[in-house]
Amino acid sequence: MVHAPARPPAGAPPIRINLYSDTQTRPSPAMKEAMMRAEVGDEQHGDDPTVHALVDRMAALMGKEAAIYLPSGTMCNVIAILTHCGKGDEVVAHETSHILHSEGGTHAALTGVQIMPLRGPKGLFSADDVRAAIRPKTRYSPPQRLLEVEQTANIGGGVVWPLAQLNAVAEVAHEQGWSTHMDGARLMNACVAAGIAPKEMVAQYDSVWLDFTKGLGAPLGAVLCGSEEFIGQAWRWKQRLGGSMRQAGICAAACLYALDHNVDRLAEDHANAKALARGLRQIQGVTVEEPETNLVFFDIRDTGVDVATLQAKLAMQGISVSGLGGRVRACTHLDVTAPMIEEAVGAIRTALAR
Amino acid sequence: MVHAPARPPAGAPPIRINLYSDTQTRPSPAMKEAMMRAEVGDEQHGDDPTVHALVDRMAALMGKEAAIYLPSGTMCNVIAILTHCGKGDEVVAHETSHILHSEGGTHAALTGVQIMPLRGPKGLFSADDVRAAIRPKTRYSPPQRLLEVEQTANIGGGVVWPLAQLNAVAEVAHEQGWSTHMDGARLMNACVAAGIAPKEMVAQYDSVWLDFTKGLGAPLGAVLCGSEEFIGQAWRWKQRLGGSMRQAGICAAACLYALDHNVDRLAEDHANAKALARGLRQIQGVTVEEPETNLVFFDIRDTGVDVATLQAKLAMQGISVSGLGGRVRACTHLDVTAPMIEEAVGAIRTALAR
Amino acid sequence: MVHAPARPPAGAPPIRINLYSDTQTRPSPAMKEAMMRAEVGDEQHGDDPTVHALVDRMAALMGKEAAIYLPSGTMCNVIAILTHCGKGDEVVAHETSHILHSEGGTHAALTGVQIMPLRGPKGLFSADDVRAAIRPKTRYSPPQRLLEVEQTANIGGGVVWPLAQLNAVAEVAHEQGWSTHMDGARLMNACVAAGIAPKEMVAQYDSVWLDFTKGLGAPLGAVLCGSEEFIGQAWRWKQRLGGSMRQAGICAAACLYALDHNVDRLAEDHANAKALARGLRQIQGVTVEEPETNLVFFDIRDTGVDVATLQAKLAMQGISVSGLGGRVRACTHLDVTAPMIEEAVGAIRTALAR
Amino acid sequence: MVHAPARPPAGAPPIRINLYSDTQTRPSPAMKEAMMRAEVGDEQHGDDPTVHALVDRMAALMGKEAAIYLPSGTMCNVIAILTHCGKGDEVVAHETSHILHSEGGTHAALTGVQIMPLRGPKGLFSADDVRAAIRPKTRYSPPQRLLEVEQTANIGGGVVWPLAQLNAVAEVAHEQGWSTHMDGARLMNACVAAGIAPKEMVAQYDSVWLDFTKGLGAPLGAVLCGSEEFIGQAWRWKQRLGGSMRQAGICAAACLYALDHNVDRLAEDHANAKALARGLRQIQGVTVEEPETNLVFFDIRDTGVDVATLQAKLAMQGISVSGLGGRVRACTHLDVTAPMIEEAVGAIRTALAR
Repeated sequence: MVHAPARPPAGAPPIRINLYSDTQTRPSPAMKEAMMRAEVGDEQHGDDPTVHALVDRMAALMGKEAAIYLPSGTMCNVIAILTHCGKGDEVVAHETSHILHSEGGTHAALTGVQIMPLRGPKGLFSADDVRAAIRPKTRYSPPQRLLEVEQTANIGGGVVWPLAQLNAVAEVAHEQGWSTHMDGARLMNACVAAGIAPKEMVAQYDSVWLDFTKGLGAPLGAVLCGSEEFIGQAWRWKQRLGGSMRQAGICAAACLYALDHNVDRLAEDHANAKALARGLRQIQGVTVEEPETNLVFFDIRDTGVDVATLQAKLAMQGISVSGLGGRVRACTHLDVTAPMIEEAVGAIRTALAR
Repeated sequence: MVHAPARPPAGAPPIRINLYSDTQTRPSPAMKEAMMRAEVGDEQHGDDPTVHALVDRMAALMGKEAAIYLPSGTMCNVIAILTHCGKGDEVVAHETSHILHSEGGTHAALTGVQIMPLRGPKGLFSADDVRAAIRPKTRYSPPQRLLEVEQTANIGGGVVWPLAQLNAVAEVAHEQGWSTHMDGARLMNACVAAGIAPKEMVAQYDSVWLDFTKGLGAPLGAVLCGSEEFIGQAWRWKQRLGGSMRQAGICAAACLYALDHNVDRLAEDHANAKALARGLRQIQGVTVEEPETNLVFFDIRDTGVDVATLQAKLAMQGISVSGLGGRVRACTHLDVTAPMIEEAVGAIRTALAR
Repeated sequence: MVHAPARPPAGAPPIRINLYSDTQTRPSPAMKEAMMRAEVGDEQHGDDPTVHALVDRMAALMGKEAAIYLPSGTMCNVIAILTHCGKGDEVVAHETSHILHSEGGTHAALTGVQIMPLRGPKGLFSADDVRAAIRPKTRYSPPQRLLEVEQTANIGGGVVWPLAQLNAVAEVAHEQGWSTHMDGARLMNACVAAGIAPKEMVAQYDSVWLDFTKGLGAPLGAVLCGSEEFIGQAWRWKQRLGGSMRQAGICAAACLYALDHNVDRLAEDHANAKALARGLRQIQGVTVEEPETNLVFFDIRDTGVDVATLQAKLAMQGISVSGLGGRVRACTHLDVTAPMIEEAVGAIRTALAR
Repeated sequence: MVHAPARPPAGAPPIRINLYSDTQTRPSPAMKEAMMRAEVGDEQHGDDPTVHALVDRMAALMGKEAAIYLPSGTMCNVIAILTHCGKGDEVVAHETSHILHSEGGTHAALTGVQIMPLRGPKGLFSADDVRAAIRPKTRYSPPQRLLEVEQTANIGGGVVWPLAQLNAVAEVAHEQGWSTHMDGARLMNACVAAGIAPKEMVAQYDSVWLDFTKGLGAPLGAVLCGSEEFIGQAWRWKQRLGGSMRQAGICAAACLYALDHNVDRLAEDHANAKALARGLRQIQGVTVEEPETNLVFFDIRDTGVDVATLQAKLAMQGISVSGLGGRVRACTHLDVTAPMIEEAVGAIRTALAR
């Protein structure tokens, strides 16, 4: 539900302060340097040493047996669901989840699963919610096979699932014989914010992926982790989807660089998000959700200005934000500094003034 | 979500009063007589005169250009969705709908569509609910293509969609360029209860089907109606699904018989349902939803008796009812008479007494 | 590849001698009598005693653990493949097989399998042909999962797979860990012609189905047999495809009648087919394939008359035959008598005379 | 059917002369330089100027309205077929085609189409072959929707489809209302070998793609071209498959570099292939197919040495070749020089000597 930005109005300057999305970070010179030095091979044939280094490191970081490098996070979700489920199975997930709203209907189109949407505040649900969703085991009901969570919960407000809650919902799933899958698009933000190691955070999840193109700043790629058998099957789907690449080590090198340099610094993004929230709260008519990570959601309906108007006015100042339904989302990341936050608050105040 | 009956306890007599489902009606001697006299041919090759008579009559009754005879209502839903939608499209329907809960996940498995569940009391939703469900037209969102309603709404309580509301939700759909489809498993109950002709009731629906195995009492079959082009495409899917039969006129003759003899009499089933509701309301701890057609839902949680226990006790009296979640459903139909209703009320009172 | 008959020319009388297909047999008075007497119930809920009697009898006849009643033979193939295979798997079958040419592309559309076409004379292939079709086990190749044969081979000329050859190809499949499936649309013709019991004929096949609407003369229905587990899964797909019916025992009774009365008499159809072949061979320019069962294929290209012209001329005499590519197919069955064969030969001779 | 190389025997040196595949070329320093200088943006949001430059250039080169950048050639085939066809449609292609054998069964698994395999020497077929494959338009037959060709035909021997033949088969397809699609994995090899401009070569093809990771030497990516409407639909599938990337301009820059520097030089690869063929023909027992482009297929069965043994012996010399069935394939590309060819011939001669 984060959609293409309202195109900037004619005469708008280039974007200087990009709060639209952490997907729009650009590779730094040092990251590009690492890419150029990468030793590469034919990754589709299992011959790219840099891809090997990345997947081995990710498997270790997540405490899983194996991992696979893919062009995008969406492909991680598609392949995970194709691998965990057969056609006609059901996945249980939050009603705001990325797999329901932002992947173009791919799970019905390609994987043949139905998604049962659970409700719950801030993109989270409880073990009781999962229990209430268990279907009778008859041939009238789709077989339930997978529980999916998003860590952090994007539409929920960039909220961090508490570890105990993550484990509790996974426990219900496993009792039922379901697998568990974590969409970890912004998993590292959750780990840094909560001070919990990835391995511990994902211990109860049979598969998990991390996106390198968001706060981690790499140009492309995500890594899906799971058991040896799971990753073996995932490779088959990677081939079928056309996700197998060739000298992909060039891109994998950026991911390795990101693991070395761009994880701990997510704390700065979170601090910037909090500063932004504080600033926005001072503006009349703006309601701000307290950010837990790098996403700041706020509501401007009481100002009488609509989201598209705000976006257009900010664009004239070289600033971008995204809109979701009635809410505005501002996203901090490595290309956003503290002074930019201050400037953005000022520009938003001006834009919302009657 | 109506599932196989709790198997009767050992020693239970045969069922005499079947309130479990109107799907369990048996063909009457006169209906069987009509079946035997039917002129038949190879319906798959377009050569069965009795099937032709049935589909022509149904098309006229529903005010559509054409119709197709199929082995079941579920196949009508599957084929309608396959015909209206491409893979990856989205269908908008009520969260209690049959297509979501009682068709085994078939729409993800076979047709490749996602179903967006709308909320609303008694299985109904409003034009505003549909408007709120309209997605932005971006490539992140599945294309929305079809609105589906169930007339009557089974899990909603056998409730009749008011004509104005049916038309209002269809109007929003058509404004969006979506098609509209009506699951008319119990459409005739709605028409009889509302005193509205089928043709008028379904005028805003591009496709509609009627099940002959419920209150109409035929052994098998349902008829799906729509435009010439729609039915032409539906035939292709009928072939692919294995729904093409041979001398099916024998069964179609039962449907023709049902149209002649078993439609108006649905009013008796509705009267019996109301009588049942009145009787049940006299029982301490029982909460009864006011029936609009032939389904009576009631809640026995305040009696301290659970649904399975009630079913087992009734089974020992040769009476069956069905359970859905915490609710009990009793269904009236042509094999249920007024004295049986009286007897059933007494048996339920006894079963629920402490 | 047997398609709808060329519509009879204007002024043509009703068909008296139907050599078009054994699917066009009509239920006899005695069969209808049996249907009327059938005890029925809700077969979808497992409550129809006549359906139970039929599937139990079929399981015993085929030497399998269990069986399921379905509306058509095509649905048997669809469900068998959905149950044996996952999406992306490959089925190995003859290049003339029904699943490739006459089921509307259903196996790609619905089951998601690729079919590898084997060549071989008369619709048959050898163990060596199967061995040559084994793919390397890499992720570039679809996983091979199922071997399918058609007994008799329709387009092959109604030819009977010799038991030793059936067993030999199945053995290769099983060595590879594949399952084996037999399309037994006309299995009883094969058993009667070869003098081999069904149980022996299908012993090496994990699943097999028999169609009751061809030479057996019932109006609709086919029965798929296999292991308990296979049939349990098949039931789930039956529900999803909309193949679950209600008081289907009425139709199952016709199938039971057919097993009692219409199996041994297939020998007459085979004798009629041979008589027809003998008669046709006397006609100048006609090349006849020696029939093994009830299908007689002949080639009239040397007569200078094309198939459509022959069909039109015969239609004026109340006689129908089918055309497949350049070949003509005449099919004998219980509505075709020895004198009709004689008449048909005469009419064909006249129609082909210059 | 080019599969992962037999893993080199223990103690084998690194590969120096890689005749295994042109997919194994490594980006040159100058190409990497161009990558580093690329201006990038979020390509999924339509904001990457280098990706824009690449797709615009490719659309112009191919004479199509629009183009889309994708991670792999396989994804181009998957998306083209998903866009041209609906589920249950049929694609007509050569029996040796990549879509049938080397994409893991993806077209049944994901796109739901059946592929009808045409025969013909060297991976080519004629207009008459296409005409003979036209199915009757009945509901028993899958609707035919797309003709696919591979230029060059890999398993056919790297053979170039003559322009007149390409046009002739496309004409039959268009007469039937089918679309036409060209798998142009090695299209530039064909254009260079035939001296025909890409725009002319693909004029009769509604969609066409070019792989940049083969002889063109880029690390990843392929570009699919077609009409505006086609590419608009293709974007939807790119999103669903997870082929949308972020700062993909880094990789697109390598493709632009390849168009500037690595097209004309394919002539050298073809000369090297011819030299290799000449050398191999001198070896007793080796049968060599005359190469038209950069693929040299040869048969060593008469030498008594099997392919795996040859591969193992060559690996000890730092040389790799691939095996397909009984044939050996050697592939020339920008990392293979004339002296390497000479050395390879010598090594093969030694390896095959008794």
